[in-house]
Amino acid sequence: GVLGSGDFARSLAVRLVCSGFKVVVGSRNPKRKASLFPAAAEVTFQAEAVKRADVIFVAIFREHYSTLCDLADVLVGKILVDVSNNTEINHHKESNAEYLASLFPACTVVKGFNVVSAWTLQSGARDGNKQVLICSNNQEAKRIVAEIAQVMGFTPVDMGCMSSACEIENIPLRLLPDWKIPIFLALGLFLCFFTYNLIRQVIHPYIREQKNKLYKIPIEVVNTTLPCVSYVMLSLVYLPGVLAACSQLYYGTKYRRFPDWLDQWLQHRKQIGLLSFFCAALHAVYSLCLPMRRSHRYLLIETAVKQAVEKKMTIWVEEEVWRMEIYISVGIIALGLLSLLAITSLPSIANSLNWREFSFIQ
Amino acid sequence: GVLGSGDFARSLAVRLVCSGFKVVVGSRNPKRKASLFPAAAEVTFQAEAVKRADVIFVAIFREHYSTLCDLADVLVGKILVDVSNNTEINHHKESNAEYLASLFPACTVVKGFNVVSAWTLQSGARDGNKQVLICSNNQEAKRIVAEIAQVMGFTPVDMGCMSSACEIENIPLRLLPDWKIPIFLALGLFLCFFTYNLIRQVIHPYIREQKNKLYKIPIEVVNTTLPCVSYVMLSLVYLPGVLAACSQLYYGTKYRRFPDWLDQWLQHRKQIGLLSFFCAALHAVYSLCLPMRRSHRYLLIETAVKQAVEKKMTIWVEEEVWRMEIYISVGIIALGLLSLLAITSLPSIANSLNWREFSFIQ
Amino acid sequence: GVLGSGDFARSLAVRLVCSGFKVVVGSRNPKRKASLFPAAAEVTFQAEAVKRADVIFVAIFREHYSTLCDLADVLVGKILVDVSNNTEINHHKESNAEYLASLFPACTVVKGFNVVSAWTLQSGARDGNKQVLICSNNQEAKRIVAEIAQVMGFTPVDMGCMSSACEIENIPLRLLPDWKIPIFLALGLFLCFFTYNLIRQVIHPYIREQKNKLYKIPIEVVNTTLPCVSYVMLSLVYLPGVLAACSQLYYGTKYRRFPDWLDQWLQHRKQIGLLSFFCAALHAVYSLCLPMRRSHRYLLIETAVKQAVEKKMTIWVEEEVWRMEIYISVGIIALGLLSLLAITSLPSIANSLNWREFSFIQ
Repeated sequence: GVLGSGDFARSLAVRLVCSGFKVVVGSRNPKRKASLFPAAAEVTFQAEAVKRADVIFVAIFREHYSTLCDLADVLVGKILVDVSNNTEINHHKESNAEYLASLFPACTVVKGFNVVSAWTLQSGARDGNKQVLICSNNQEAKRIVAEIAQVMGFTPVDMGCMSSACEIENIPLRLLPDWKIPIFLALGLFLCFFTYNLIRQVIHPYIREQKNKLYKIPIEVVNTTLPCVSYVMLSLVYLPGVLAACSQLYYGTKYRRFPDWLDQWLQHRKQIGLLSFFCAALHAVYSLCLPMRRSHRYLLIETAVKQAVEKKMTIWVEEEVWRMEIYISVGIIALGLLSLLAITSLPSIANSLNWREFSFIQ
Repeated sequence: GVLGSGDFARSLAVRLVCSGFKVVVGSRNPKRKASLFPAAAEVTFQAEAVKRADVIFVAIFREHYSTLCDLADVLVGKILVDVSNNTEINHHKESNAEYLASLFPACTVVKGFNVVSAWTLQSGARDGNKQVLICSNNQEAKRIVAEIAQVMGFTPVDMGCMSSACEIENIPLRLLPDWKIPIFLALGLFLCFFTYNLIRQVIHPYIREQKNKLYKIPIEVVNTTLPCVSYVMLSLVYLPGVLAACSQLYYGTKYRRFPDWLDQWLQHRKQIGLLSFFCAALHAVYSLCLPMRRSHRYLLIETAVKQAVEKKMTIWVEEEVWRMEIYISVGIIALGLLSLLAITSLPSIANSLNWREFSFIQ
Repeated sequence: GVLGSGDFARSLAVRLVCSGFKVVVGSRNPKRKASLFPAAAEVTFQAEAVKRADVIFVAIFREHYSTLCDLADVLVGKILVDVSNNTEINHHKESNAEYLASLFPACTVVKGFNVVSAWTLQSGARDGNKQVLICSNNQEAKRIVAEIAQVMGFTPVDMGCMSSACEIENIPLRLLPDWKIPIFLALGLFLCFFTYNLIRQVIHPYIREQKNKLYKIPIEVVNTTLPCVSYVMLSLVYLPGVLAACSQLYYGTKYRRFPDWLDQWLQHRKQIGLLSFFCAALHAVYSLCLPMRRSHRYLLIETAVKQAVEKKMTIWVEEEVWRMEIYISVGIIALGLLSLLAITSLPSIANSLNWREFSFIQ
């Protein structure tokens, strides 16, 4: 049974019918809504639909849950699947599923399917990675809903008892939570180093020698800033591991929990590392662009003309040549190694490595 | 039971035996073929094999289905699994599975396993993404075959009733169908812009000033063409979304189907976007190669020599310097952002993002 | 039931409790260890735990298996799950699971869960790719353990009978076995070509003309070496396919096994191809860096000054210009095509291609 006649209810009915289930849709206005649903799904009044179904998907908004109270009698003993989502993280004190369970104590409530979009439901879960997180206090009801999900082509994942409902409801609302701190960290570091390099390369020569070097801001200053950020971020990837090891040695046990800040830090290493790689890659592209610039061309011609006019042959400074050759060479090798690290952090590759291989590459 | 003695039949038997099933292979020449099959699989005559098996995999070509008609009596009530593939898309009017079902109305036919190669069967489905698409008009038979697939280590996906058989049979034959239109679009755009740039940069100076600039064709003309293609393709990614929104606003409903051309367009956005990124990345590499060219070197020395001979110092044109600095700087940032977009379109990363994160990155 | 009180035992207990199972932990010192386990898991003496459980996870080291012999009586008829790992590949003559089975012939032993880390157990298998490889001689026991794995959110993969236990136990210990030969091959080729180029570009001019060109070693010599390695590796990718086809034509059958060396070679093609791409990409970056070097700048200015002083205008050598333009242009296109090949070898993309698409791209 499906209660509701929105987008999600329709897609759910389509998918259930396709997977061979008998579907009854309960609507407050069955005649007007029937055309929206697939022909094989019977659209009828809510009470009628509830009576004939064993498992009922409640595809209506939390605000309208109370309108179902009229159906309390026929709902007794049924399995209610709460598929709802909120619009804000932790919007309500209790999760939607727990609220539904409190309204209908005589029903078994299962939370699930909220992480799946109406679009995925309709197009089918062919890419094989779509998981349906399920939780409930009743093992038997959870098993039935998990089986339905499996037949529909999804991978049910048991998330334990009802208290996880809140966590499940927050999943579709999260916005790259693991990335927030590392990104602000990178931006902060960038600003600091940018200011320092700006003062050194542009403001200082202007004040001391009245030279206008403003043209250096978009490329040269940014290009000297990026590797600084990249280095600091890279060191921040490996530092917490060292701190954790020290803490374990100090306390002589590995069962003691790390302090919260260290725990957080340890969990953000991957993101910090990827941002470090991003800065390094940008630095590489910026550096490669240096000889393309008009200013580089002007300076080159200027030097050549000056030396020709003064009849002075170029002085080949062996040390400068070597410094540049080695600098570039080491830079390329470092970029190559960082690229390998970045590639192994792709989920599909990380999943195919065992722990020993992963730590070897690290 | 497995009927047939080709590559696929052998691999199927190997896998079934490995997964703990009792396997009987039916062959028209059991003695000669027995050596090809694993020892644990019994190879016998077709009629004998059919009699002793409940689920029979029909691993023979469509053309030979009619040879099974002699077995019609013993086949009554059995589940036949059609694992066949065609050599051309929509080669026959009805799918192989439907044809098999029409030959043996007293059997239950299930389509499945055709998307799996003999190689995958033999080596096992360890990478965990190998799906087996299954369809049948009989729910119970479908359930049994799905269970067999699961025990063999595959992920069965229910594709509904027998009418999907045609679709399932076409899957192994498709050749990047989503990419055809975008690739021809990109090639068409490339040709147009290339012709325009060729006329502007090579033919026009030749006719007007008799200057031979043919050497510009392989790199410079291609390099000015690529960003044009990339820009137009990128705008074609975001345009259909706007058109769809307009259409929804105009009709005042989101339940009205879009016209077919718009629907097709919306579904090709990802491919168009990736081709746009590919052009942009090629443009970046081409641009970076510009200072490496011999012609660049010649022009540079020529300018220097001319200025030195005429005792004229270089004029530093502030505007040109700034234009180039900003042009390169914006180009790098755009490439960096496009790279992020391209990375999030990798299946393994796209699957780990929820809808909110995906649209935020877009 | 879980026997043992280490990290893995704890994580297993946590996960089992979360998935709704009733868990009894058997420890030799239940009082001291109880605090380590979740409250819902009952920690008691080993004999007591074994008595009350049907499926017993043996989370202790192989060396201590014999300490369980006291429990032999109560263990009769139970399913023992061996989750152990070794520290070295093929350390013992028989696998841990076979050893356990030989100690307790009255029990049914199932190997499994050893490929899952304690960390994955505790954090849950949300990324959906974590497989649990299972093998046993008893189909029923294997089915029960597979079901437990599924409820815990893992994907059980049936690996056949007990003789596979050794293979399963070696999986967490392997260290990129497919990469060893290709990497040594690439290093060997690199050394050969590097020596040749070093002699040609540095040592020969020094001996013949006393010119010091040592500065060329870090970039120019490496940069001429990389494409040679890349070419040879690329040809080694396509050569074995040709040899295999010849062998099949010669023997007139495709059922004859290839000789071992050819089989090995065929299986390493992907890794050889990726290393070829890595060398090609490094070559591209090295080449792009050439105009950034100080030495390039010196040579350029030197030429300009010399020509200006001698009042000689540059000679534009059309052939040299064309050669460079075409060389760079073909290089970029080759790199673009190799990138596509490399991208399709990412597991998540390779899995979404059918055989026809894959061979088309190749």
